Amino acid sequence: MTVRAALFDVFGTVVDWRTGIAGHVDEWMDTRGVTGVDSFAFADEWRSRYDPSMREVREGRRPFARLDVLHRENLVEVLLSHRITASDDDVDALNSSWHALPAWPDSVAGITRMKSAMIVAPLSNGNVSLLLDMAKAAGIPWDAVLGAEVAHAYKPTPDAYLRTADILGLAPEECLMVAAHNSDLKAAQQCGFGTAFVRRPTEHGPSQTVDLEAGGQWDHVADSMEDLATALGC
Amino acid sequence: MTVRAALFDVFGTVVDWRTGIAGHVDEWMDTRGVTGVDSFAFADEWRSRYDPSMREVREGRRPFARLDVLHRENLVEVLLSHRITASDDDVDALNSSWHALPAWPDSVAGITRMKSAMIVAPLSNGNVSLLLDMAKAAGIPWDAVLGAEVAHAYKPTPDAYLRTADILGLAPEECLMVAAHNSDLKAAQQCGFGTAFVRRPTEHGPSQTVDLEAGGQWDHVADSMEDLATALGC
Repeated sequence: MTVRAALFDVFGTVVDWRTGIAGHVDEWMDTRGVTGVDSFAFADEWRSRYDPSMREVREGRRPFARLDVLHRENLVEVLLSHRITASDDDVDALNSSWHALPAWPDSVAGITRMKSAMIVAPLSNGNVSLLLDMAKAAGIPWDAVLGAEVAHAYKPTPDAYLRTADILGLAPEECLMVAAHNSDLKAAQQCGFGTAFVRRPTEHGPSQTVDLEAGGQWDHVADSMEDLATALGC
Repeated sequence: MTVRAALFDVFGTVVDWRTGIAGHVDEWMDTRGVTGVDSFAFADEWRSRYDPSMREVREGRRPFARLDVLHRENLVEVLLSHRITASDDDVDALNSSWHALPAWPDSVAGITRMKSAMIVAPLSNGNVSLLLDMAKAAGIPWDAVLGAEVAHAYKPTPDAYLRTADILGLAPEECLMVAAHNSDLKAAQQCGFGTAFVRRPTEHGPSQTVDLEAGGQWDHVADSMEDLATALGC
């Protein structure tokens, strides 16, 4: 079937969250006179709590809570582990770092090309205002902002994919999941989506060991969003 | 407070649904050899069932159903009243008319100007795929597609406005409701939204009698989206 919508994972796939978060952490620490914190390690630690925090929601032990809420809870724990005290407003300010992350250099150009031929939208675990603020700041030309908050389900729960296709009025086969993570593509493929793996070998820094190569029978494997646009004939 | 998001009613405010639907009806009837139908009267009749059909959902007697579903049920009734028989596929085809409606001549230019200074998104009773297809076809540069389906509540229920502000991470006072309908603005104002009335004196055709003038203390009254953009300093 023809691809009618390209749906993108965002953190790591469209934007370089690690560099972005580390930069925000450095600025935040500097402003508050906190020293001795490795901002990349801080970013990694914060991110490492991302998946476990969603598990409570995925497994039905907690009602759906948007990612801003989970990020903040995780941040409070990371600050505590570093014995850094901060006001609620200061925690909020640091938490909003996820709303402003740099796109990989090829993302905006590639997504803009795809947009001329199909619907382009995030299918991210990020909440709507996070994704929207990020898109405004980075110039990502989404047609709509979809994902976990709109579907009321976190990836890789099947509902996250299937409800998104349903909201778009499309069959799963008309949707292409674009991600730098094999696990995301595997879950999407099991729902009937097409799949495109985009290599992001430095998402986790220079010594990344995961998701360096395609780990499944994906429909497309690309080194950038521009390459993927070309593969899709855009 | 500063306006952070301009949220638009769509049918009548951004697009000329009556001309658009009548055109689609004419084409559909011609293709099927149906004669003797006044396509503007048909459009008006179809639209007149819009509000009553949402009432069941608003008043809690029916679970939320997206507008495509309500439009189709209403269309079946209108076809029946005209004694026109059609296949399910043909009914679907005519129902999709709402996904492709012409923007008023000033809409795209005005919304594009506002987009440079704030979030621009529909806050419509239309469902996501309807609004998205319409935007792609008419070139309306929404930042996100919000409204009844995402909020799971039909205007003028307060939740339609309040949940949309919440999803955006904004206070109601940071949201500006833009509509050609005084009733929509009244409900938004009661939720704390700013209000902008845009005159659309021919939405219901040349003999329109309703919503010709502002019917409340609105923050802005404009004759076009371009005028509103100017009033907002965009």
